Amino acid sequence: MHALNVTRAEDFPEWYQAVVREANLAELSPTRGCMIIKPWGMGIWERIVGELDARIKASGHENYYFPLLIPLSFIAKEAEHVEGFAKEMAVVTHHRLKAVDGMLKPDPEAELAEPLIIRPTSETIIGDAFSRWIKSYRDLPLKLNQWANIMRWEMRTRMFLRTAEFLWQEGHTAHADTAGAMEETLYILDMYKSFSEDFLAMPVIAGEKPENERFPGAVATYSIEAMMQDGKALQAGTSHYLGTHFSEAQDIRYQDKEGNVALAHTTSWGVSTRLVGGVIMTHGDDDGLRTPPAMAPKQIVIVPMLRGKPEDGELRAYCAGLANELKAERAFSAPLRADVDLKDARPADKRWDWVRRGAPVICELGPRDAANGQVTYIRRNELRQGDRIKSHSLARADFIGQAAMLLEQTQKELFAEAKARLDGNIRADFTTFAELENYFGTEDNEGEFKGWARVAWSRPSGAALEAVGNRLKALKLTIRNAPRGQPAAFGKCIFTGAPGVEEILIARAY
Amino acid sequence: MHALNVTRAEDFPEWYQAVVREANLAELSPTRGCMIIKPWGMGIWERIVGELDARIKASGHENYYFPLLIPLSFIAKEAEHVEGFAKEMAVVTHHRLKAVDGMLKPDPEAELAEPLIIRPTSETIIGDAFSRWIKSYRDLPLKLNQWANIMRWEMRTRMFLRTAEFLWQEGHTAHADTAGAMEETLYILDMYKSFSEDFLAMPVIAGEKPENERFPGAVATYSIEAMMQDGKALQAGTSHYLGTHFSEAQDIRYQDKEGNVALAHTTSWGVSTRLVGGVIMTHGDDDGLRTPPAMAPKQIVIVPMLRGKPEDGELRAYCAGLANELKAERAFSAPLRADVDLKDARPADKRWDWVRRGAPVICELGPRDAANGQVTYIRRNELRQGDRIKSHSLARADFIGQAAMLLEQTQKELFAEAKARLDGNIRADFTTFAELENYFGTEDNEGEFKGWARVAWSRPSGAALEAVGNRLKALKLTIRNAPRGQPAAFGKCIFTGAPGVEEILIARAY
Repeated sequence: MHALNVTRAEDFPEWYQAVVREANLAELSPTRGCMIIKPWGMGIWERIVGELDARIKASGHENYYFPLLIPLSFIAKEAEHVEGFAKEMAVVTHHRLKAVDGMLKPDPEAELAEPLIIRPTSETIIGDAFSRWIKSYRDLPLKLNQWANIMRWEMRTRMFLRTAEFLWQEGHTAHADTAGAMEETLYILDMYKSFSEDFLAMPVIAGEKPENERFPGAVATYSIEAMMQDGKALQAGTSHYLGTHFSEAQDIRYQDKEGNVALAHTTSWGVSTRLVGGVIMTHGDDDGLRTPPAMAPKQIVIVPMLRGKPEDGELRAYCAGLANELKAERAFSAPLRADVDLKDARPADKRWDWVRRGAPVICELGPRDAANGQVTYIRRNELRQGDRIKSHSLARADFIGQAAMLLEQTQKELFAEAKARLDGNIRADFTTFAELENYFGTEDNEGEFKGWARVAWSRPSGAALEAVGNRLKALKLTIRNAPRGQPAAFGKCIFTGAPGVEEILIARAY
Repeated sequence: MHALNVTRAEDFPEWYQAVVREANLAELSPTRGCMIIKPWGMGIWERIVGELDARIKASGHENYYFPLLIPLSFIAKEAEHVEGFAKEMAVVTHHRLKAVDGMLKPDPEAELAEPLIIRPTSETIIGDAFSRWIKSYRDLPLKLNQWANIMRWEMRTRMFLRTAEFLWQEGHTAHADTAGAMEETLYILDMYKSFSEDFLAMPVIAGEKPENERFPGAVATYSIEAMMQDGKALQAGTSHYLGTHFSEAQDIRYQDKEGNVALAHTTSWGVSTRLVGGVIMTHGDDDGLRTPPAMAPKQIVIVPMLRGKPEDGELRAYCAGLANELKAERAFSAPLRADVDLKDARPADKRWDWVRRGAPVICELGPRDAANGQVTYIRRNELRQGDRIKSHSLARADFIGQAAMLLEQTQKELFAEAKARLDGNIRADFTTFAELENYFGTEDNEGEFKGWARVAWSRPSGAALEAVGNRLKALKLTIRNAPRGQPAAFGKCIFTGAPGVEEILIARAY
C-alpha cells in the first residue's frame, strides 16, 4: 500500500496528476486551461524564483517589468515570430462591459481600435524599448530580465507542464556583436544547467536544438533536457541567440566607437513553472513528491502526537523548542526551514500529508520523545524498508547538530539517483535507423520505459530534416538537442548513412 | 540650481513626472496607460514585496496564484461588485489571430463562447475556490494572499499612481463569524500602517471610509491615508470586511461544531505599486528621490573618480575592498547593500544620477581618499548646505563601523520629517462648513498647499451623504476616512449642525 492510489508503473500520467492533487501543489481552475497554484506548489516556485533571481542578478542582469498587453502591430513586425506565435493567443478587443437585456456583454462602443494581445513572450515589446534605449556602444550590453505571467492558448493542457497561463522568467539582452550575444546565450545555458542540477537536483543535458525546433525568429536555440521517470524528455529551459532578426524588425541600432551605425545582436531565455512538473517527475515516488531539500518550502516538519490530554502542553513546548533551535541552524547557506504542524487533524493524517508533499524530514514526536529528550523522524527519500516505514531516532542535540548535514545529504542522494537514471538510460549503440526503429517500436508502447538514444547524424537541413522528423514522428520520437561537448569523430548518420558531423539525442518528450 | 529642471513649488505634478523619469523609476509604454518599470523602480518594488510578504506570512497567511482571466459569469454574480467594476475592464473575446488581406485580425472562428475578463481584483474567482475548499469550521479561518498583476481600464493615468495595469498584493480570507473577520480586517489595517511607517518611512492615518467610498460589495472599508508634499491625500492601502455578500453570491458555507450550516464571512485587502508613487511624493525633493534606506535597492553607492590613468587600478581596488567590507555589515537586520558604480561615464554624471535616484549614501572616492584611507561621502537626505553640496569625510574604518547606524538614522530622519508635515497640517479648528469653504476656497487653487481638515460630522447616510459629497466636490475635497481612535465627545456636525458622532478627515486627494 502506498500513499497514492495509483503507482508510476500502473499509469504514469495518472500518477502525475495524483501527485499534483495529493501533494496539494495545484488544481484546475474554472478558467479553461489555467491552474490555481496552492501553497506547497507556490512555495516551491517562490524558492525557484528566489534562487534563480539571485543568480541572474549576480551575473549583471537587472529586473524590469513590461506590460502584459502587447499591441497587435508589434507582434506583426517579425515575420517568423508571427508564424510561430500568432496562432493561439488571447486577444483583448474591448475595454468595457455593458448590460444588454440583463446580460453583461462586451460594449460594442468600447471596441479597441487596435486589439491587444496577452503576451505569449515579450521579445516584441522589449525590442521596441531597446530601440529607444540603445544609441551607442556604451549602452551595450544591455542585460535585462523580467518575472511575469504568460499566456498561450494551448489546446491540451497538463498542470505545470503545459497550461494556458504560466509563470516564468524571461531574459532579454542586446550586444554589439555575435560573439557577445553567443557568449551570453551559452552563459545562460550553463547557468540553467547548474541551477537545475544544484537546486532542483535534476540532472540535464545541455545542447543545441535542430533548426526546425528553433524559437520563432532565432538563429540558434539551446535547451536543457531532463529525463523523467517514464524515460521521456522534458525541455526544462531554453536560451536563444536571435541574431539581428529582431533588431532589424524593430530598428535596434547603435553607433560603434568609430561612429558607424550597426544592428545590435539580441538573445532571449526563459524557464517557467514547468520546472515544478520536472521536479515531480524526477523525484516523485508512489507515496507522492520527494521535494529536494534545497527548494522545499519546509525542510523539517514536526508532527506532535497530541491526544487532547493534559500532557499535550509539555509536548507542544518540546516541539516548539525543537523547531526554534532548528530554525537557528543553517542549511544550503540559508536559515533552516522548520515548522510544527498544529492543524486540527489526526497525527497520522498529518504525517501522510507531509509524506505526499515530500517534506524532506518528518519528525513524529510523542510524550516519550519529550520525556527522553529524543527525536524520532523519517527521511522522505528513504521512506520504507520493505513493508514498513523506516523510522530513525536520535538524541535531541544530535538531531539538531546533524540536521543541516542530513538535508544536504538528502539533496545529494536525490541528485545521484536521478543522475544514475539519466546516465544509465541513454543508448549510444544504434548505428542504423532500423536498429532505432526496432528498439523503440512503431506500435503504441508509449507507456513503456525506453530512455533516450544518442546517435550520429549528418545534420540535414530543410526538406531533408523534415523527412527525418517525419520518420521519427512515426515512432513518437523527437530530436531533443545536440549535446554540448561533442566527440572528435563521428559514426555514420543513422538516417542517411552519410558521414556524421554531430551527435544528437532522440527521445519521446513532453 | 537643482538636479531636476522643475521644482515642487513651481509645478508639483510636473515635478512628480520629472522624478519618475530622472530617477529612472519607470516610463510610459506603447501600450496605452501601462508603464515599463525600470531597475531602480523595480528594485524598490521588490524590496516592498520582500518585506510585506514576510509580514503577511508571519501572520499565518499562505500564498496562492489564481488565474489572470476570470469568466464573465463570475463577475456577474455579485451585484454591487458588478456595479463597481463591470464598467472598465479588458475583455478577451478571441483566442486566435488570422491573416485577413495581409493583416492580422482576431479570427472570427476563434471567438470565445464566454468572454474572459482580465482580473480587476480576484474576489470572484477566489470566492469560487473558497466555496469548494470550505466545508467545515475546521477549514476556517482560511487566510490567503497572492501577488499579481491587475488591470483596470483607467481613462486618466499617472505613473505608479493610477495605471491600467499595476502590480499588487491581494489578501483574501474567510472566517466563521463577524468577529473573526473584523479582527482580520483591522489586523491588516494595522499591519499596513506599521509597514508603511517602518519601511517606507511614510506616516499614515488609518481609519474607516464613509459608506459611499466602500469597495463594491463591502460592509466596511478601511484605508491608510498619507499626506503628500502638495498637501493632498494618497490612499495607500485598503482593508475590507465583506460580510457575507460574496459568500451568498458564491455559496461559501461551512458546517459549524453543532452541525449547522452557516455562511462564511470574508475579507480582502491590498496594496499596490501605487506605494512607489507615495514614496516619491513623501520623500522626493528638488534633486530627485530620497529613497528610504530600508527599501533602497542600493544603500551605499561608491563612485570612483577614475581618470583613465595608471593609478586607477589602486583606486578601483580601494573601492572594491570598501564595498566588500560594507556588504559584510548588517543594516535593518539584513546585509547592507553597497555597490561600486563602474559604468563608462563621467564621475560627476554618475554622482548626479545617484542623487536623482536617491541612493541614501553616495561615496565619491579619489586617489587621495585611497592614499589616506579615507571615505568622502554625501548623505542624500541632507544634500546641500546653502548653495553647496554638503560633503563628509571619515577614516575608512570609522565609516564602515558607522555605516549601518548612518542608514538607520537616515530612515528615522525621513520619517520624522514626513511625520512633522502630517501632524502640522491637519486643521481641527473648523466648526462650520463656511469656515472650511473659506479656507479651501472655491476657485482653482489646487496647486496651493492646503493640508487636511479634521472635522466632526453626524455621519449622514444615503442621499444626505451624497449631498455632503457634492458640497465637498465643489471645493475639490473628499472624505478620506474616520480615523481610528476617536475622541470621547464630538463638536457639532459641520454639514448639518446636528450633534457630531464621529470625526473625519477631509482633503484633496489623488
